[in-house]
Amino acid sequence: MNSYSSRLAARIQQTGTCALVGIDPRFELLPQPIVAAAKSKGLDGEQLQVSATEEFCLRLIDVVAPLVPAVKPQVAFFEQLGPAGLEMLARVIRHARDQGLIVIADAKRGDIGSTAAAYADAWLAGEDPTAARWAADCLTVNPYLGGDSLEPFVNVATERGAGLYVLVRTSNKGAADFQDRTTDEQTLYQGVAAMVEELSVKTLDGDYGQVGAVVGATWPEELTQLRAAMPHTLFLVPGYGSQGGTAKDVMSAADNNGQGALINSSRGINFAHSREPFASEFGPDHWEEAVQAATKAMIADLG
Amino acid sequence: MNSYSSRLAARIQQTGTCALVGIDPRFELLPQPIVAAAKSKGLDGEQLQVSATEEFCLRLIDVVAPLVPAVKPQVAFFEQLGPAGLEMLARVIRHARDQGLIVIADAKRGDIGSTAAAYADAWLAGEDPTAARWAADCLTVNPYLGGDSLEPFVNVATERGAGLYVLVRTSNKGAADFQDRTTDEQTLYQGVAAMVEELSVKTLDGDYGQVGAVVGATWPEELTQLRAAMPHTLFLVPGYGSQGGTAKDVMSAADNNGQGALINSSRGINFAHSREPFASEFGPDHWEEAVQAATKAMIADLG
Repeated sequence: MNSYSSRLAARIQQTGTCALVGIDPRFELLPQPIVAAAKSKGLDGEQLQVSATEEFCLRLIDVVAPLVPAVKPQVAFFEQLGPAGLEMLARVIRHARDQGLIVIADAKRGDIGSTAAAYADAWLAGEDPTAARWAADCLTVNPYLGGDSLEPFVNVATERGAGLYVLVRTSNKGAADFQDRTTDEQTLYQGVAAMVEELSVKTLDGDYGQVGAVVGATWPEELTQLRAAMPHTLFLVPGYGSQGGTAKDVMSAADNNGQGALINSSRGINFAHSREPFASEFGPDHWEEAVQAATKAMIADLG
Repeated sequence: MNSYSSRLAARIQQTGTCALVGIDPRFELLPQPIVAAAKSKGLDGEQLQVSATEEFCLRLIDVVAPLVPAVKPQVAFFEQLGPAGLEMLARVIRHARDQGLIVIADAKRGDIGSTAAAYADAWLAGEDPTAARWAADCLTVNPYLGGDSLEPFVNVATERGAGLYVLVRTSNKGAADFQDRTTDEQTLYQGVAAMVEELSVKTLDGDYGQVGAVVGATWPEELTQLRAAMPHTLFLVPGYGSQGGTAKDVMSAADNNGQGALINSSRGINFAHSREPFASEFGPDHWEEAVQAATKAMIADLG
């Protein structure tokens, strides 16, 4: 069985970039032609939302699959559409896997014991897409409940060749509220980082382990420090683009081979048709070209 | 519109207890007759699991509805059954609401901005069960991402007369890993507690606010200290029974009127048919009587 870190490394090498495309299909921001097409089929209400969102996600995936190593669906926007939305997410994930993409389910789950194991079982398919209800390669998890809450996730992940990204230093302003508190001469997030690095060393395959870290692009100093403190840990870096992080800010996340990190952009790519500089060139009728141009621009920017 | 705290208070007064029944329908622990009945309908695989689990949950609800104020479905065990499991959970929640029960969805969600709002929109129906895809009165949330991650949940909750329980001091051993770290002369969980109490004061209706706290029964000293530090905060106390917390341990959680706290038991009630002292008296064929006896025993124990 091939581990998550080895499969990700191969895919980064193949595409030559660490750009990660977040899939954040907020219904009210979907390109107008997608919604109009669903309406013209006579759909309304939940069916309209689910159908239009699925069409958007599948076509977005087709555009970015040749360009980037991985995609990160934000589970909340599918959960907001109810059970039918989550069923659709399962199809969207399968489609992304079929196109060769690594899929990171951004669900930020966290619980203890058999409950944590149930979440892991549901989401972490790992190498074999048929091994879980949602066929993700990888899942984001929340560390607040402590080490014994991460254990069941790590166990399922290593069994199935799947990966995890633990929230360490998030990209929002409120991250400072708790994560920055100094505890025993280190901040809380540094304590979480130490535990994650330990789990990475325990699950090492090649240069990196299977338990990664979410570290926001909006805090470049902390990112550089954490990169040094966590040499065996894969990074998932949100906050590039819409949230203000620049290519310079995230430079330190990857190693000299361009490995070890994924830099995420969601809204800036998903809704490029409504954002400059792409909106005036493409607009909603050419939203796929806008997605492609925005993805290529990000890849070039990251170098 | 009636707030969560006022509706909960009325229901506690009506039933005369603060006992909360967790719904943890792990398929492998379901009473054998429930599984056999589903099999005899010719079901297998996922359909068998979903059908048997639903039957179990609906009948469990019918047994406990006249006895306790609220139930707490553990979302992970439904998510483990895939989209069909989550669709079934929506029906289970509706049924519990129809029986007059307050429903707390134990999903431990947590994210930022519009993503947090999407989770809140999906789960927090509040007073009107038709206001969300899953018709919960209340949701458990994780505070690791900070104050701005709680805000969207609080906004939706107060709009809809719904409630929240923020993880403060959880019942597992690993809770000590991060929650107990001393930060600026207080522990992390005390810092979280201070923020939650502030949110409770802001959303006060009657004696309590709409933003509660999860505080484990397995740490009676911390529970007593937190009760004193959070006089306006509703407590949800897991860890009674199976996890080792006793009635004496949780005594301090409620106020002198028996209000302000819910004490949860999940496995000890769900699977009473396979646990002494109820197993030998009832067994799997009489699992509903076992559930009823275990619930009544818990209510009597809590006094």
